[in-house]
Amino acid sequence: MQRYFIEANQIDVATQSLTLTGDDVHHIKNVMRLEVEGIILCCDGVGTDYRVMIEQISGKEIRCRILESFSSTGEPERVEVTIAFSLPKGDKVDWVLQKGTELGASAFLPFTSARTVVKLDEKKAGKRRDRWQRIVKEAAEQSRRGRIPTVHSLMNWRQCLAQFSSYDQILFAYERGGKALYQLLTGRKARSILVIVGPEGGFTEDEATEVVSEGAELLHLGPRILRAETAPLAAIACIHYTYGELGGEPL
Amino acid sequence: MQRYFIEANQIDVATQSLTLTGDDVHHIKNVMRLEVEGIILCCDGVGTDYRVMIEQISGKEIRCRILESFSSTGEPERVEVTIAFSLPKGDKVDWVLQKGTELGASAFLPFTSARTVVKLDEKKAGKRRDRWQRIVKEAAEQSRRGRIPTVHSLMNWRQCLAQFSSYDQILFAYERGGKALYQLLTGRKARSILVIVGPEGGFTEDEATEVVSEGAELLHLGPRILRAETAPLAAIACIHYTYGELGGEPL
Repeated sequence: MQRYFIEANQIDVATQSLTLTGDDVHHIKNVMRLEVEGIILCCDGVGTDYRVMIEQISGKEIRCRILESFSSTGEPERVEVTIAFSLPKGDKVDWVLQKGTELGASAFLPFTSARTVVKLDEKKAGKRRDRWQRIVKEAAEQSRRGRIPTVHSLMNWRQCLAQFSSYDQILFAYERGGKALYQLLTGRKARSILVIVGPEGGFTEDEATEVVSEGAELLHLGPRILRAETAPLAAIACIHYTYGELGGEPL
Repeated sequence: MQRYFIEANQIDVATQSLTLTGDDVHHIKNVMRLEVEGIILCCDGVGTDYRVMIEQISGKEIRCRILESFSSTGEPERVEVTIAFSLPKGDKVDWVLQKGTELGASAFLPFTSARTVVKLDEKKAGKRRDRWQRIVKEAAEQSRRGRIPTVHSLMNWRQCLAQFSSYDQILFAYERGGKALYQLLTGRKARSILVIVGPEGGFTEDEATEVVSEGAELLHLGPRILRAETAPLAAIACIHYTYGELGGEPL
């Protein structure tokens, strides 16, 4: 069943109704071809889902009656994982955002490091971010997330490091050293984890030394080389698996 | 450093040399632009890597001197995971093959089920398989695998089920039921695991009932919906993580 994110101000609790606007109207009318009495799911992005019935379709809005509301089940409860990625080339970013969202990422932090090949000026970065936010929103709808992950503005190396204090644990994926993911997670109860992955060329030794001095731990993802877009997905899947967010109780 | 898979008959142990032929010659000469004295890595696909120096480049072959040989480190040692996937649309298959190889899959088993949308006649299936094998070979080279995963010919539902007896454990990803991955793996020491994922439309209840009667266990990958191409990658990453193949000791 199709699912739409809405803002709190679109909900009228008194009349138990809600109103959809903008792109969603087009999608419901022309893509899903739903009509009056059609049923859809809406999510307020802060933990509540609504099952609603379409009552009235006009040019610019669709009014629905709320049939029932219930807690969103798509959000990780025990740990929040942010994926920081040094910009890889081409559409790999799209994959990371889409699959990272399916796998429960709470936020994405694109940044540049010594070996980042992609150059984005401020204007391009702004446009790219709009596009990234659309990708994340759509993935959040499809994967039944309870909220839309945040996509931070593109940061440079220094700005990325300045984020460290916001996290209980920082894992820096480094091909030439580091501990296994299991060793880094075992016995730790982090409420927030920042996973940092490099561009195609990886990170330099200086960068690894610097992040360790700032409180990060070096993470080694095994004997096989994972591509820039694969590493963050493997990491977040295993972290959530360990915290029992991929179904089941925590390990 | 570029890495090439070779056959045993390309190696001359007596003279400690090996010969590269075919597409690899073109790649070395024209893509990597290596010359005499250039160093490359070769892998025999059955556990040994060779560090070699180019001695002679001709039109159709390149002869190299073996400098040293050592065990391939890129293969999982404790468990072999095969990914069986009901054909998804478009290039999602490429993604599953490439990233599945990076994550250590030992084989891929494409099949069709009730809700598979993609139709491939025998001729198309043959061509597609050739392409898939090239993708897997390239991914195995890049990710430093010790062997190239097998890509089985396209199977139908019945043929897929007939494979079950070859595996210690069969995990059937099913959205509407099943246990968490951790519950299915804990305390079990499987040498071979078959992970089965559905097409975009998922599996039917009849299919789920049938595989259980044939010895499979239903796997539920958590509260978020994972796309057809994401599910197998999350599963194999977590399985190898559990078996200590993603770096570190087994859980």
